[in-house]
Amino acid sequence: MNAARLAGSVRVVGTGLLGTSIGLALRHLGVDVILSNRSPAALRLAIDYGAGREAVPGDEPTLVIVAVSPDSTAELVAAELAANPAALVTDVASVKSGILADLETRGADTSRYLGSHPMAGRERGGAMAARADIFLGRPWVIAPHVLTTPAQERVLESLALDLGSTPIRLSPDEHDRGVALVSHVPQVVASLLAARLLGGTAAVAALAGQGLRDTTRIAASDPELWIQILGANAAPVAEVLRAFRDDLDGVVAALDDPDAPGAPTRLAAMLTRGNQGVARIPGKHGSDARYETLVVQVADAPGELARLLTEIGEEGVNMEDLRLEHSPGAQIGFAEIAVVPEAAARLAEALEQRGWELAPGGREPGGPS
Amino acid sequence: MNAARLAGSVRVVGTGLLGTSIGLALRHLGVDVILSNRSPAALRLAIDYGAGREAVPGDEPTLVIVAVSPDSTAELVAAELAANPAALVTDVASVKSGILADLETRGADTSRYLGSHPMAGRERGGAMAARADIFLGRPWVIAPHVLTTPAQERVLESLALDLGSTPIRLSPDEHDRGVALVSHVPQVVASLLAARLLGGTAAVAALAGQGLRDTTRIAASDPELWIQILGANAAPVAEVLRAFRDDLDGVVAALDDPDAPGAPTRLAAMLTRGNQGVARIPGKHGSDARYETLVVQVADAPGELARLLTEIGEEGVNMEDLRLEHSPGAQIGFAEIAVVPEAAARLAEALEQRGWELAPGGREPGGPS
Repeated sequence: MNAARLAGSVRVVGTGLLGTSIGLALRHLGVDVILSNRSPAALRLAIDYGAGREAVPGDEPTLVIVAVSPDSTAELVAAELAANPAALVTDVASVKSGILADLETRGADTSRYLGSHPMAGRERGGAMAARADIFLGRPWVIAPHVLTTPAQERVLESLALDLGSTPIRLSPDEHDRGVALVSHVPQVVASLLAARLLGGTAAVAALAGQGLRDTTRIAASDPELWIQILGANAAPVAEVLRAFRDDLDGVVAALDDPDAPGAPTRLAAMLTRGNQGVARIPGKHGSDARYETLVVQVADAPGELARLLTEIGEEGVNMEDLRLEHSPGAQIGFAEIAVVPEAAARLAEALEQRGWELAPGGREPGGPS
Repeated sequence: MNAARLAGSVRVVGTGLLGTSIGLALRHLGVDVILSNRSPAALRLAIDYGAGREAVPGDEPTLVIVAVSPDSTAELVAAELAANPAALVTDVASVKSGILADLETRGADTSRYLGSHPMAGRERGGAMAARADIFLGRPWVIAPHVLTTPAQERVLESLALDLGSTPIRLSPDEHDRGVALVSHVPQVVASLLAARLLGGTAAVAALAGQGLRDTTRIAASDPELWIQILGANAAPVAEVLRAFRDDLDGVVAALDDPDAPGAPTRLAAMLTRGNQGVARIPGKHGSDARYETLVVQVADAPGELARLLTEIGEEGVNMEDLRLEHSPGAQIGFAEIAVVPEAAARLAEALEQRGWELAPGGREPGGPS
């Protein structure tokens, strides 16, 4: 019945997106999940959704997962440590050092606390947005500290693997510096960049291309949540932003006197370092060396894209990624199809023989749009 | 035979991506296109590609389009004005004021020069990447100056419409400030942000999510081209970057003392202004109010996505946009399908009846990833 690596009951405190999603996933595996929420209505919703059951006297969870907002995490972790003296307690907040320090200040038994951070949860918040699969293939950071035992690490590793995540071990400090770099600073930069558009006219906004859309998309994020995250990871974020600002000052100086000797070199260095930085990002979309992208022209008629994908399937080639580009009002779109490099040339030839028009070269970035 | 709004022969100087694409598109409409390039081999290639013909003595083009790099544009516009005393001469460079000023310095007959800027050309450069359709649905800026006549504006308007673009009138200054905001500053910011990753470890890069990928994608752009663009539009770009830096200083100050009174308010204001700024961007992907997005779970098996799209076609619904999200190693992906709001509820119901699993709510941004 129980297909999970995890043993025993799991108590989930907080039934927002992450807590409810964890509950759903563990229930699918047959784990006994006890749900808790300050709001009885929110608790009811998550139970009705199938994410777990209400607590009953005598419950003895082996693992407690605190899945509340960053601001409330330390307080609830401390309460759960006290209320469940035999349990390992973890949390899912996107900052780690501050919570550990807060627990120490509170005199909590941190020998049974091991923080973690599943790098998932882009959907809208709330139990209604929860899904068992949001952790699939995502990193799940486990942040051991001096009191952490190997057995405790194995428990959280089991949790991460049960949910389909990839466990990654980082110290709380490494984690916080890491997410400052890959998540918190990009959020600040995207928000500041989007805010600049408030100075432009509607005619200017009409010039927007995909580059602007991509660089500012996450500026639509929820301010309330992000105030908490930035506040809780302030020092590492400020450190990266300061280095960013120093680089920016160099660019502004070069632009203030673009004909000065050295100015073009300075701009070139900035752009080249950007090339090198983006090449460090693993995964999909443009910068992924693991795949090759074919761009196929697709008429804007019902069934055309389906026909293309059917024919790719008939060629026995697996698509690793797909993106459709389609200008408003245009009669055609472009399907960008990522495949393993071994398959790219053969598929391109087969599609051309079948009458599809392929664009020479990829469409990913080059000139300005 | 000639289906174009444009009358007379068109001479295209420079057979890179833009020049060759313009030639191809005009040839499709039956326009007589004369091609010119300093490199005979590059010229041959564009002619073989079907973008136009070689010049012959006695050619009298009514319109000359200079489509070379920003650095060479003014020199070649001046030469074409002198060589074609009856023609209107335009260019396609992504900066406008500097070129006009340069022409005035050269003593060129600017009464026959009207600059323009098609906001297209994301593909890799070169004639081989050219396609007749890259201008479809894209803005085409026409930048009149004091000597421009309404008749000249109508000629460029005809050109833009012939190529499927949307003509937008902006003064050279408005244009340059506009593209600084929507294109050049995003490029600098993305490059600077990506460059920060050079300070991180491989473990940190493994934490990267879609937010980082989107915000840094254009950092992969060609440095050589961008040095020219930034150098030619230095003052407007520096002005926006300076305002960006002032905002950034405010964020750093708030993060340096996150518990100070006013610090959370400052962060909230920054994030809220980001929300407001991104809402100004028209078009697709997240911020587009014209479409509703359905998120459908698709098994990672050949033919599954094709089956989904076939069934959407059977329901008679036209997809406005499609994006596939697929975690590396995961057994399922998510197809994000944009449709007109009128069709969304009906399609969702039909797909669920056909056994597809739909995600509640969109996946576009919210919490950190």
